[in-house]
Amino acid sequence: MAVPAHARALSSIRNPLLKDVRRAVARATLTEDGFAIAETFHLLEEALRSDREVKAVIAAESVKSALENHVGRLGRIQLIVVPDDIFPSLSATESSQGVIALVRPPAWTLDQVFRGRSLVVLLDGLQDPGNAGAVVRAAEAFGASGVLFLKGTVSPWNPKTLRASAGSLFRLPVLAAIDADLARAAMEQRRIDVYATVPSGGRLLADAELTRRCAFIIGSEGRGVSEKLRASAIDLRIPTHGVESLNAAMAAGILLYEAARQRDINHEPV
Amino acid sequence: MAVPAHARALSSIRNPLLKDVRRAVARATLTEDGFAIAETFHLLEEALRSDREVKAVIAAESVKSALENHVGRLGRIQLIVVPDDIFPSLSATESSQGVIALVRPPAWTLDQVFRGRSLVVLLDGLQDPGNAGAVVRAAEAFGASGVLFLKGTVSPWNPKTLRASAGSLFRLPVLAAIDADLARAAMEQRRIDVYATVPSGGRLLADAELTRRCAFIIGSEGRGVSEKLRASAIDLRIPTHGVESLNAAMAAGILLYEAARQRDINHEPV
Repeated sequence: MAVPAHARALSSIRNPLLKDVRRAVARATLTEDGFAIAETFHLLEEALRSDREVKAVIAAESVKSALENHVGRLGRIQLIVVPDDIFPSLSATESSQGVIALVRPPAWTLDQVFRGRSLVVLLDGLQDPGNAGAVVRAAEAFGASGVLFLKGTVSPWNPKTLRASAGSLFRLPVLAAIDADLARAAMEQRRIDVYATVPSGGRLLADAELTRRCAFIIGSEGRGVSEKLRASAIDLRIPTHGVESLNAAMAAGILLYEAARQRDINHEPV
Repeated sequence: MAVPAHARALSSIRNPLLKDVRRAVARATLTEDGFAIAETFHLLEEALRSDREVKAVIAAESVKSALENHVGRLGRIQLIVVPDDIFPSLSATESSQGVIALVRPPAWTLDQVFRGRSLVVLLDGLQDPGNAGAVVRAAEAFGASGVLFLKGTVSPWNPKTLRASAGSLFRLPVLAAIDADLARAAMEQRRIDVYATVPSGGRLLADAELTRRCAFIIGSEGRGVSEKLRASAIDLRIPTHGVESLNAAMAAGILLYEAARQRDINHEPV
């Protein structure tokens, strides 16, 4: 199948759209007109499957034929082909696949994040985009209702966060740059049990009643959970030995797994 | 406290020890004489606490004062101070703290990896050093007896793996570059239940009897578990929905948590 006629080969790095992409990658956030940088074929497929608006697909010349497998589904989406030597300047990742999709992120509300029998993760200052993305992926996998990225946390629309989420960011209700006071008020109002993990003391994970509406605060890799949120949270301990702590994303995944396990055992759908 | 007299300021990048470090970093493995590159103050502390042999500590000029807090414990370890502009050429990580320790890795046997009521992770082709290190950290945390890095897997002594392990690689029995046939024979001989995770079908994680001696195979991010090992393994499913799979390290962490949970409930020490 041939690449459609609207595909254009552009070599100028001054092209406005490519300039916008390059700036968004450098700032690790959305483009000026609010599109997320989705790298990899997998993310392109996930965006199309999730019915997200895709503004354009940028492909390196050498992956054009691989892209042709997807072209039927690209429909009227603008396809921009750039020379292979230009492409790396557009990419946020070391192991680029030569394809970037510009995808409109979903817009969610607090009510959607806390819908039903809430199971929410609050990211409080987490800096590593790989960790943040892995948390969103696990949150979707274990039936969480949503994830809040608090102020001071890496952006969900950092291209590396999006890539690590493996597409879950296109589907799971997520809000970015949320003020800690707002998050606390929203949880108090909804009578959510809020948990913060601690290395010693606190309630044992398996003893917490996670079938109730609840939220887990995941602190930054270095400083942990901020005092402001910690004060109103229940201390929770993942039973470990030998290590000071677990990787932040792994801790989140284990909390979510345990919540899903308890909820499933009680035969109550999430 | 002053930096001891044997500290030397070296600016020549031709210094043999620095050359050896630079080569090891480029190859993402041990130095020629078999020392691991341990970056960060935390790893230096973990190495000293674990009584590992530390051949030398290399520090950037500007972190000398921070290092002085550790100097009392450095004892007779050679301290090499390098100018700040030279240091980045020695570092494997983007966010270097300006300190590198050369640490002798522990030497382990298969019997140590499978000691007691074995709980072992086999890494089968995993390429990401951050993931591999996080697995070793979780393995120690949840009382695993050891980790086997099969041939074709990232090295445990890749500086990034070591860093992500947060020091667990200095304590937990680990073997590198193990042949898959050897691993399979070792597990058959010891009557280990071997599990491989699958996206659908298979036994549900919570229904597996993980109080028995067991091992989990974690495949590579792209290709999963190799056919050779898969054939002799029991299919195991982590119950998820929406996503195709979990991050490999997170899947390993959840398997290990569930094993520790089951073993603890039965009051049998690992």
